[in-house]
Amino acid sequence: MQAADTHPVEHSTSFDSVPTPAIVMSAVRVRCNIERLASYAAAHGIAVRPHTKTHKSVDIARQQLVAGAGGLTVAKLGEAEALLPAFEGREADLLVAYPVVDTPRTQRLARLARTATVRVALDTIAAIEAVESAARTEGVTIGVLVDLDVGMGRTGVPTADALETLAQAVVATRGLRLDGIFCYPGHIWAKTGEQAVPLGIVAAKLEEAIDRFDRRGLCRDVVSGGSTPTAYQSHLVPQVTEIRPGTTVFNDMNTVRGGFCTLDDCAASIICTVVSDAVGGQIVLDGGTKTFTSDRCGPAPDSGHGHVVEYPDAIITKLSEEHGQVDVTRCAKRPRVGERVSVIPNHICPCINLQDAVWWQEADGGLRRLAIDARGRLS
Amino acid sequence: MQAADTHPVEHSTSFDSVPTPAIVMSAVRVRCNIERLASYAAAHGIAVRPHTKTHKSVDIARQQLVAGAGGLTVAKLGEAEALLPAFEGREADLLVAYPVVDTPRTQRLARLARTATVRVALDTIAAIEAVESAARTEGVTIGVLVDLDVGMGRTGVPTADALETLAQAVVATRGLRLDGIFCYPGHIWAKTGEQAVPLGIVAAKLEEAIDRFDRRGLCRDVVSGGSTPTAYQSHLVPQVTEIRPGTTVFNDMNTVRGGFCTLDDCAASIICTVVSDAVGGQIVLDGGTKTFTSDRCGPAPDSGHGHVVEYPDAIITKLSEEHGQVDVTRCAKRPRVGERVSVIPNHICPCINLQDAVWWQEADGGLRRLAIDARGRLS
Repeated sequence: MQAADTHPVEHSTSFDSVPTPAIVMSAVRVRCNIERLASYAAAHGIAVRPHTKTHKSVDIARQQLVAGAGGLTVAKLGEAEALLPAFEGREADLLVAYPVVDTPRTQRLARLARTATVRVALDTIAAIEAVESAARTEGVTIGVLVDLDVGMGRTGVPTADALETLAQAVVATRGLRLDGIFCYPGHIWAKTGEQAVPLGIVAAKLEEAIDRFDRRGLCRDVVSGGSTPTAYQSHLVPQVTEIRPGTTVFNDMNTVRGGFCTLDDCAASIICTVVSDAVGGQIVLDGGTKTFTSDRCGPAPDSGHGHVVEYPDAIITKLSEEHGQVDVTRCAKRPRVGERVSVIPNHICPCINLQDAVWWQEADGGLRRLAIDARGRLS
Repeated sequence: MQAADTHPVEHSTSFDSVPTPAIVMSAVRVRCNIERLASYAAAHGIAVRPHTKTHKSVDIARQQLVAGAGGLTVAKLGEAEALLPAFEGREADLLVAYPVVDTPRTQRLARLARTATVRVALDTIAAIEAVESAARTEGVTIGVLVDLDVGMGRTGVPTADALETLAQAVVATRGLRLDGIFCYPGHIWAKTGEQAVPLGIVAAKLEEAIDRFDRRGLCRDVVSGGSTPTAYQSHLVPQVTEIRPGTTVFNDMNTVRGGFCTLDDCAASIICTVVSDAVGGQIVLDGGTKTFTSDRCGPAPDSGHGHVVEYPDAIITKLSEEHGQVDVTRCAKRPRVGERVSVIPNHICPCINLQDAVWWQEADGGLRRLAIDARGRLS
């Protein structure tokens, strides 16, 4: 368990002494969520490479690796560096699922490759040239997955033709090793039945690229895909060899309202204190956008800024930076000033990134402080 | 200048070696913004107590105090503790503009009052009782401003009658000292001409409460009000003795598009690197919601997620956690992959809170690292 040395409270038996707003994680639910994904992936022969941007924690990354994850995914180099201790004795295996193109990043990527297996997803010739240059300077080999846009429209080239161009550019370098194909179907939020068509489109795009790679003799050993909403439908895209879900480790109101899990599967909540009830029909929580972020709930944008567990009829209607205004007019019993409540946020990932540490709660109720090791690692 | 000891780069002559995304502050513009507010307030005989939630920096708070601020405003006790060094030799003078009601906070507030002049804005009897209890335990006196809702509907009681009830409760305590009235007209975003009516309502509500206090012999030496949008119209509410603007020190797209300043008055921008142009008509910046937050621009919610200074026709259309998708179809010249651009965010305050440090740029271009001392102080 990671812990910051300077905090006055490292262990606690109750929340009474814990300053709020504070995130608490149910150890049992985190373990269940990790095991569920591991079992599913094992049953379908798919490798799991969790995206650590969700938890940013060495301890939780270690649990994911122990449960069978073959490696970790990061967005930023700072996250990779902070999470290296999770690999303990074994060689680190990291995928940087982010275009690395500028000198500060290419240098850090190459240094990382001295001691770790490192792959990076790239989608431009400029990035390939920049990473190659750093790899040659450092005298290392860096694996590359070429990024195919499967409909998200964020990164990735649009066609098998353009993907081949990138792959050929990688093969022509010294210092880079073509390892396969990368995609991110982050635009798919529909439930299983409805998403047969969009997942079919993803599969068809990958199949076309794979055919092309096979005809050209280009390596496609790794086909890395998957997102949190599509995690448990990954077998419907048989081309994928590994998946990179992030939020599945905790879940949040996005995954609940998207129909991908139940409230009982949510492993992280934010403990808040009721600080005011001076305005009629309303209470104020001590969490605003600096705690919950301004992220709306994707599947239900008008549902407010989170789910108040103890008062399910309450609606968090409005956030300032440090205030959460909650409409309690529909609540049979109303929270009193000073009371603490648990809120499941719309999107847990950026909320974790706002905390230096969270509280890890075992089944006996005991609380331990868990550092968010990669918090704020923006570059 | 505060600086974290462990960072590899403390000084730099250019941005080339600075990892992005990174916030840069123009020293000249920050000083101008501080001086402008100080001059305005001095001309109208209004005290300035800047809200430090915007910058969370000891160094900038010190500049505000040197320019004439009588004290500082904070939302959270952790901010107050972190910013104490800004007062240097003189006695600290802090207003906690937040309902303090739970034990962890009341204890910290009372401890703070041992060595500092401390006031707190309260709006419930429960909070008054809780703060009194802590003050008596600690053997200190804490000043109280009673919070009147002037239309924001967030905290504060709705009527002069209810405000008197709070004030009488404060007077009846030992350990608390009634210092006056608090309000926050944060709902007023209209420009000068249009807001004559809403500011008139604020003035009328305050006048009614002041009349009541005078008739009852209740202290109203301090009448604390003001927000960033209304900062330079504070003289239109003559009841106010002090104002608490936050964002005026930097400005952002909210204050620009609200008509309260120009782009040239914006002192803080976020340097980003273009990491992809693989998707047609679009570039991707290395800043997403973990850099810009999801806050929309209040006065122009459809204007995107910030203003790209070098490419004013670009629109930041969509943010993921670490990606900013920018529509560049209207740009005559398009940014290339690897290029760095400056973005003025919609709302600067929560962006600063996502950085451990920012870059302070003097007129000669030299950069120094400036720690965000109170970053992440949520409680």
